[in-house]
Formats: sequence, C-alpha cells, structure tokens
Amino acid sequence: MTGSVEVSAEQRRREEALTDHVLRSFDACPDPRLRFVMQALVRHLHAFAREVRLTDSEWQSAIAFLTEAGHITGENRQEFILLSDVLGVSMLAVTINDAALGDATEATVFGPFFVDGSPEIAIGGEIANGASGEPCWVEGTVTDVDGIPVSGARIDVWEADDQGHYDVQYGDGRTAARAHLFSDEAGRYSFWAITPTPYPIPHDGPVGKLLAAVGRSPMRAAHLHFMVTAPGLRRLVTHIFVADDALLGSDAVFGVKDTLVRRFVRQSAGADPVPGSRDLDGQTWSRVRFDIVLAPESA
Amino acid sequence: MTGSVEVSAEQRRREEALTDHVLRSFDACPDPRLRFVMQALVRHLHAFAREVRLTDSEWQSAIAFLTEAGHITGENRQEFILLSDVLGVSMLAVTINDAALGDATEATVFGPFFVDGSPEIAIGGEIANGASGEPCWVEGTVTDVDGIPVSGARIDVWEADDQGHYDVQYGDGRTAARAHLFSDEAGRYSFWAITPTPYPIPHDGPVGKLLAAVGRSPMRAAHLHFMVTAPGLRRLVTHIFVADDALLGSDAVFGVKDTLVRRFVRQSAGADPVPGSRDLDGQTWSRVRFDIVLAPESA
Repeated sequence: MTGSVEVSAEQRRREEALTDHVLRSFDACPDPRLRFVMQALVRHLHAFAREVRLTDSEWQSAIAFLTEAGHITGENRQEFILLSDVLGVSMLAVTINDAALGDATEATVFGPFFVDGSPEIAIGGEIANGASGEPCWVEGTVTDVDGIPVSGARIDVWEADDQGHYDVQYGDGRTAARAHLFSDEAGRYSFWAITPTPYPIPHDGPVGKLLAAVGRSPMRAAHLHFMVTAPGLRRLVTHIFVADDALLGSDAVFGVKDTLVRRFVRQSAGADPVPGSRDLDGQTWSRVRFDIVLAPESA
Repeated sequence: MTGSVEVSAEQRRREEALTDHVLRSFDACPDPRLRFVMQALVRHLHAFAREVRLTDSEWQSAIAFLTEAGHITGENRQEFILLSDVLGVSMLAVTINDAALGDATEATVFGPFFVDGSPEIAIGGEIANGASGEPCWVEGTVTDVDGIPVSGARIDVWEADDQGHYDVQYGDGRTAARAHLFSDEAGRYSFWAITPTPYPIPHDGPVGKLLAAVGRSPMRAAHLHFMVTAPGLRRLVTHIFVADDALLGSDAVFGVKDTLVRRFVRQSAGADPVPGSRDLDGQTWSRVRFDIVLAPESA
C-alpha cells in the first residue's frame, strides 16, 4: 500500500501496547539523555513501521541492506555515512548543530573521506602530490565574526582528483589531494589545489543500489573540503562549490548552501601571472577566493 | 537535553526546508511502494533527529555502532536482527503482519538462530543430537481454524541447550537441538527436545553494550522455537514459553504472548511411563502439549 490504511481498534490497541512495553523497558536507564534519545528513537521507528505497515519481506530487506553495508565498510569505505548522507540525516545534523550565526561561514557535511594526520604544507604550497587535475589557486583569510584576523588557524583541505577519486580510493596507501596548513599572522592562507569536478559517491554498494532503485543520481556537485580549527572558535567543517555547476540543485547528499558557492575563475595558459613560484608548463588553471569567518566556540 | 527545547522560527524553517528537499528527491522513484516507504522513513528519521536535537557526537556514535554491528555480523551472528529485536521492531513487524485471527496460534519473533536445511526426524524422534539438557517430550496436533487436522505439515523446531547456546554458536559446524518433522494423517506430532532454560541474547557486541548502558537485561524468557508450514495455510513462526518463568515479563526481545505460555510438567525419574522407546537412564524429564492452529493463507 502507498497511503494510509484502516487499522482496527483492536489491532491498534495491540500495536500501541507493544510500543508502550518497549518504551517502559528504558525507564531504568541511569543516563537521562540516553533514555530520552532511545525512547524517542523507539517512538519514531515504531511510528514509521506502523504507518507504512512494514511487511516481513521489507523488514528482511532492511536487515540484508544493513548487513551488506556493514560488510562493505572498512578502513577506506564508510557505507553508513553514505547512507546517512543520502537520506539527508548528515546534513540535518549539521543544520541542527552548526546553527547559522551572523556572517560566520556556514557548515556542510563532513563526508566519509577525511583522514587524520594529513601532511603539512607551507602557505602557497601544493596539495595534489600527484593527483590528476587542473591546477587551482585557492586563497583567502580566516577571521572571527568581528573581522579580527585569526593567525595560526589550522586549515585541513581535501578533494577528489579529476577522475572522481579520493586518495583513499586508490587502494595503494598514497596520500594525495589532502593536506593542512596554517594561516599567517594576518589570517591569510593560500595553496595550490585541483579545480573541483563532479563525481559520484561510491555507488557499487547497497547505497548505490538504493539510489538506482529510487531513480536518484549518485553525483555530488563539484566541491573542495575545508575543516578549520582555531582555539576559542567553533570548528568549521564545510566545502566550497563551483558556480554554474549543473549539479548544484541535485547534490546526492544535500550539501549545497548558496553561501558556499564560489566563482572559480578560469585562467588562460601562459597569459595570466601565476601566483607563487609554480611552473605550470602551459596548462590552464583556475583561481578562487574563500574568506572564512569562524563563529565563537560558545555559539 | 532531555525534553522539548525552543527552536527559533528561522532555524525551524531551515530544518523543514532541508527535509522537504530530501523528500522531493524521491519523487521520481518508479516504484510507488518504495517511494512511499523511503519518504516515510526520511520523515520519521528527520523528526527523530530534530526532536532530540541530535548532537554531532551522538551521530558519530550511531555510525560507529552500526559499523561495529556490521563487522560482528557473519554467517552465525546477526547483530542487526538483535538490534531490531531489542528495539521491539521485530515484534512490531510480527504484530503488524500476523494479525491475530480467531483461535489461530499467535506468532512471535523469528530470532537470529534459524538455519535452513535442518535434519528430518521421524515422529517421536529426538532433536538434541548431543546438545545438553533435561529431556522434554513435546506433543500436539496441527489443525486449521475449523479444527480440521493438517497432515504433512512441516514443523521446524530449534532451541538453545541448557548452557544457553544454539548449535551455530558452538563454532564447530555441528547441528544439534534443531530438526524438522511432519505431522501424521491425524495432524499429530511429537518429539524429544530439551526443557527450555533462560539464556542471554549474544551480548558481547554493540547490542549487548547498549542494553548494559540503558540498564536492561539481555535475558530471554525460556522458550522453544517452532516454524510450521502447510500448503494453503499461513506460515506460523512462534515459540512456546515456560509457565512460572520469572523472565516472562522482561523478555529482552518482547516476544512473550500470554497465549504462548505452556506448563512444562516435571516428570519423576523412573516413576512416570516414558513415551516412545527412549531409555532415560534415571534422568528427570518434562512434558508439554502444544496444539497448533494455522490461519488460512489469505488471512
């Protein structure tokens, strides 16, 4: 069925009695927050199953889906984050927890491809380390909401290559298109990255099969990941997106926010002055500016 | 927080806009039932996250929980079924799908320990095959709701030994305390089993940790599993429980129904006549009667 159905009063009574019984089983939980969260989870899960009149074969499909997701998940693949992403739960958690605050830069989804312990580069350095793609000069400042420069802010950046792969997907242990740097005394930062290109989220697993079954694309709008941390300021996890990308309205993980879309300006090969000391050897390149505003930690 | 909180109109608007966006992404789903189920899942999941104001660390805990559950799940361990069981979702699905029908025997949870392809035994045969426990004579009839005997009904039975372990938990590939038999021309069946004893669900994994954290016991009320199938009749998956078991009110998976509780009558060693041709060698034993009534397939 695909809409509301008649359920007899006796059947409704039996279902409600079961839900009440399950809710009461958490009454002795010593942690009030955990009790509250688990009882809410039970209420909403049961309401879902009752509303759709979940069939036995659908329940079995759900168990099989979670099992398959668990088995494909490993050190370099996180199918449960992908699932949370494509159901909009990751973006909802970001929206709940990183409430917009004045001019502070907005947050978006973390994604499954961050890796702790990326290499440090100097300001003006290059993150690609062999990852393929058009060079892209990224520059900006880090300030607080009062416009005061934040020096020494740690800026982690990571992205896919122009074939749509992050380094962890190469399978050879290489680190590429992933680094961190620190803002200077005037809050400035800059680095060479790769012009972002759209790519699909990993769709050879159960989440990809789900997207295909519901007629959704696995493509993400092109983006470059940032995580920025500085003492006394709220950690910012965000991306910048590329203006005019046709995928901005249908991002598979609902991560796009208007304030995060930037113009990546195409630069002619050889014609425009190249920042830093890089020899681009006649390649085209792009440049983008992203001024980052960090909210106070308590916000 | 452990109750309702104030959310600003602007914040509520942003959260609702995100949920609407996610719901619309399923609009092109070619399967109307799948669209309905997925949109309902998104609505209820988002309502849960918004109600509890799910924190980032709670979201991360949920991802880690599902990952751990996936990794402990294998051929002989199904943590996602255990999770569904302890949240009452399995029993709710049974309640939704096996609506009580007149005098038809009620259903209960399937559990994670059924294995396809159990050995066949003759009527009066023994299922233990070396599993430890007090012998228990089980007998009864299979009829339809009009009282007509059902001959040739397939009766699968399985249970834990008196140490609380199913054969699949021994880890040595043995088949024990698990078999199937067929009712005779008068609908009768009987077999030697083991008197059921209470046992914990597997609690060395994430589901066990969750139960400990919320102050719940992992113990299941003592029971013997049945699955009964016959052409034209609804498949019955159920247990029988032991009268006077102190755990009847706090079964970890909410599987107990009053109509499934039976008296297991203790028999003195040597004093009572032993059914079949079995030599009990001075052991005590028990006996129980379970008359099974199958609903029509269309019910």
